[in-house]
Amino acid sequence: MMNPALREASRFRNPEQFRDDGRLVVEWVANYLASAGSVAVQPDVAPGDTLARLPRSWPTEPGSIAELLGELDRDIMPGMTHWGDPSFFGYFPCTNSSAGMLADLLVSATNVSTMKWSTSPAATELEQRVLRWLGDAIGLDDSWSGVITEGGSISTIIALAAARDRATSGEARRRGISGTTLRMYTSDQVHSSVDKAIITLGIGESNLVKLATDGAFSMRPEALRVAIAADRAAGLAPAAVIATIGTTSTTSVDPIAAIATICREEGLWLHVDAAYGGNAALLPELRAHFVGMELADSVVLDPHKWLMTPLELSCLYFRDHNEVRQSLSVTPAYLASHGEDAPTDFMDYSLQLGRSFRALKLWVVMRHHGRAALEATIRHSCALAREFAGWVGEAADWEIPLAPPFATLCFRYAPPSLELAAANEVNLGIQDAINRSGLAFVSRTILRGRLYLRVAIGHPDTSSDDLARLWAEIQRLVLAPRPQ
Amino acid sequence: MMNPALREASRFRNPEQFRDDGRLVVEWVANYLASAGSVAVQPDVAPGDTLARLPRSWPTEPGSIAELLGELDRDIMPGMTHWGDPSFFGYFPCTNSSAGMLADLLVSATNVSTMKWSTSPAATELEQRVLRWLGDAIGLDDSWSGVITEGGSISTIIALAAARDRATSGEARRRGISGTTLRMYTSDQVHSSVDKAIITLGIGESNLVKLATDGAFSMRPEALRVAIAADRAAGLAPAAVIATIGTTSTTSVDPIAAIATICREEGLWLHVDAAYGGNAALLPELRAHFVGMELADSVVLDPHKWLMTPLELSCLYFRDHNEVRQSLSVTPAYLASHGEDAPTDFMDYSLQLGRSFRALKLWVVMRHHGRAALEATIRHSCALAREFAGWVGEAADWEIPLAPPFATLCFRYAPPSLELAAANEVNLGIQDAINRSGLAFVSRTILRGRLYLRVAIGHPDTSSDDLARLWAEIQRLVLAPRPQ
Repeated sequence: MMNPALREASRFRNPEQFRDDGRLVVEWVANYLASAGSVAVQPDVAPGDTLARLPRSWPTEPGSIAELLGELDRDIMPGMTHWGDPSFFGYFPCTNSSAGMLADLLVSATNVSTMKWSTSPAATELEQRVLRWLGDAIGLDDSWSGVITEGGSISTIIALAAARDRATSGEARRRGISGTTLRMYTSDQVHSSVDKAIITLGIGESNLVKLATDGAFSMRPEALRVAIAADRAAGLAPAAVIATIGTTSTTSVDPIAAIATICREEGLWLHVDAAYGGNAALLPELRAHFVGMELADSVVLDPHKWLMTPLELSCLYFRDHNEVRQSLSVTPAYLASHGEDAPTDFMDYSLQLGRSFRALKLWVVMRHHGRAALEATIRHSCALAREFAGWVGEAADWEIPLAPPFATLCFRYAPPSLELAAANEVNLGIQDAINRSGLAFVSRTILRGRLYLRVAIGHPDTSSDDLARLWAEIQRLVLAPRPQ
Repeated sequence: MMNPALREASRFRNPEQFRDDGRLVVEWVANYLASAGSVAVQPDVAPGDTLARLPRSWPTEPGSIAELLGELDRDIMPGMTHWGDPSFFGYFPCTNSSAGMLADLLVSATNVSTMKWSTSPAATELEQRVLRWLGDAIGLDDSWSGVITEGGSISTIIALAAARDRATSGEARRRGISGTTLRMYTSDQVHSSVDKAIITLGIGESNLVKLATDGAFSMRPEALRVAIAADRAAGLAPAAVIATIGTTSTTSVDPIAAIATICREEGLWLHVDAAYGGNAALLPELRAHFVGMELADSVVLDPHKWLMTPLELSCLYFRDHNEVRQSLSVTPAYLASHGEDAPTDFMDYSLQLGRSFRALKLWVVMRHHGRAALEATIRHSCALAREFAGWVGEAADWEIPLAPPFATLCFRYAPPSLELAAANEVNLGIQDAINRSGLAFVSRTILRGRLYLRVAIGHPDTSSDDLARLWAEIQRLVLAPRPQ
């Protein structure tokens, strides 16, 4: 251990320099936060504009943090979409908090890799603790354990790897998938990350069976039963069902309890994708959507979507952690533990070996805001979505495919005079015009051939006024003469 | 767009509150940086100690950031390993910088998801630009493109997914692995993340062929050729070779050029794992280790290991980005682009859909420090490793399995009087004693049955004195009477 005074000479980690630079960066961020709502949400740039502003070669001269913040403002920010704007209604994730941002600085400063208990005991145990706090809050009791991952896509790969290995009694891990055609079932509203997981795991995208949904965009349990039986009859090997609470397009909810019953009877793994919706399980009044979730084998919930936590942070829960560990644990000599009663090593439940200390971020957000405030902001989003849906529902010539279970609404302009293709063009034009205006950022989706506008509400500062302004602009656009 | 003044009322993103809290966190981090070298590197805790300090249930009352920093100090820090200590010699990654930490705050504050160009144009283009700067610096010309991922493990999964799909002409993606036994080849020094990738991809761990290395722990090209031929004769399907520049145990280097020649002849994908070593390709005097790297299909390099960049940031380069995109691209309706000449969407090259703005972090580190300073710190680490190896090499009864190509050294106490098992016990005891002392943190590995101490040097503030103190303590330990 060296004299701390000597360390101060470091150009990489000088505490005094850090204080000075830290003040500059904090000031930059405070100003950025204050600017929300007063800049265009979506930048007016063409592909290549930012590249043209950036030097083609790595500049030889170092730049001070002050200089870099200047370059950030001059060269990079003009091309940024402002995901933190109260009128950003594009995608999940869209929530964040000052506390979460500062937590990321703490994560980065401590910079431990939480691969093994022994490589940072407190980080491992804090991860266990906050996962339990959150599990309790969403109705997964302490028979469940979990792991924090980078995002829902990764959580899903981990869960379905365990499902794959269960279905093959571990052969998929040991000798690869071969000789068996595994099948996994979901709805036609499934998130693309499930397709990517199936592809990654070597199961093949054609073996993800996407069942046609009902009028509420929910999986039909009877269709699931029929599909499983047909596959068994054809000699295929049903392995898992992926059900969703809060699908991406409409946030529809699959009937989890009924699906869980089928999974138990058929011996299939049930993975519940509650990456978005799961955050709303904090609210007692929304718990009806989650009935049966506790019967699943794995559940994913992304605090970076709706729990005021910056990217990237997903929580994967599993009913039997041994199954996940058996699928993913690989321990080389340089990481072997010795002694008995080895505590949890999160590398055994993760695709990554090196893992940043994300638990600290979730702890800061949960402790700083507390459950009541986090509940309140989700409740606020849901109330706004209902209000917005009310306006759209009362307007002539507008269609809503599903009353929003959470805080995301799809809708489209569909006067009887417009053919489907023309209506799709009009709605696409509305989206483009809104996003180009900088007033707000909205996304779109396609449901049964119809193009819908899509508004995902989540920012704690979004107000009824923000939505009223958006709705007024949308209505103005459909009435405005269109360029030919 | 709302009046900015109204936003200030937000409890989640209040600029004034952020300024105040930000100052507290910056002060905490500055003090943490100043404490490096004056606290025990490894905490003196038993499993469960931190859990016992943390409330079993989510506290009802919110806590201010000041209160949380108090709880952090009281309940969490006593159980932390200090990866940022100049005497942390445990694992890669171990490097970081003030600029990188502050960059993480900027990443978190802007909080864009870089899934598509259109979801944040500048973030996508900055990622392209910094990957090019770094590619130029390590000798991968602009025929290479890349993607920033969470870490080497994820980069390897992405690269080998593309290899798998090439070997099956896309069938593995479309219909899964079935009817073919794919084989991938590497050395017995391969990193565990490659085992995990093979498992994840459904290829099966038994199909990762680990070739016995030579006396320098390097892959033997002739053994590779023999293994491929034997597998072809047995009806198996050779698909890829994973070669390493800087293996984890000894940082040995595989003969890339010779391996690349075999891969070309045999039509195999060559993935180069330079997660650690690749950072040293910045140094002209170490370029000899990288000859042939430009003949690979994919190369991974982790700036979070040795380029003063906090976790998590890995760079994956590929020679033909189309192969990766064909393996991994999945575009649902709500993310479909319209129009021609769609620019790069990084979700097409990533396991994740939502992706944080990591490029900003790498840009800050590269711009702030500049190439010369980053080179200098890597050079400094390598010089220290050579110095340390010199001391150990001159001492009686100590053995070094490989002169360190980079800045990681393995060594063991092995007097002729000690049998292998006893020697392993003694060296394990030294590791335990050092780590328990808090003086330094060292790791260990096993090579051909022998347990070695392992010292990975990378911290820019590590000094010759730090290593001398460690070496003196190790020598003292072997001479001290051991408890019976």
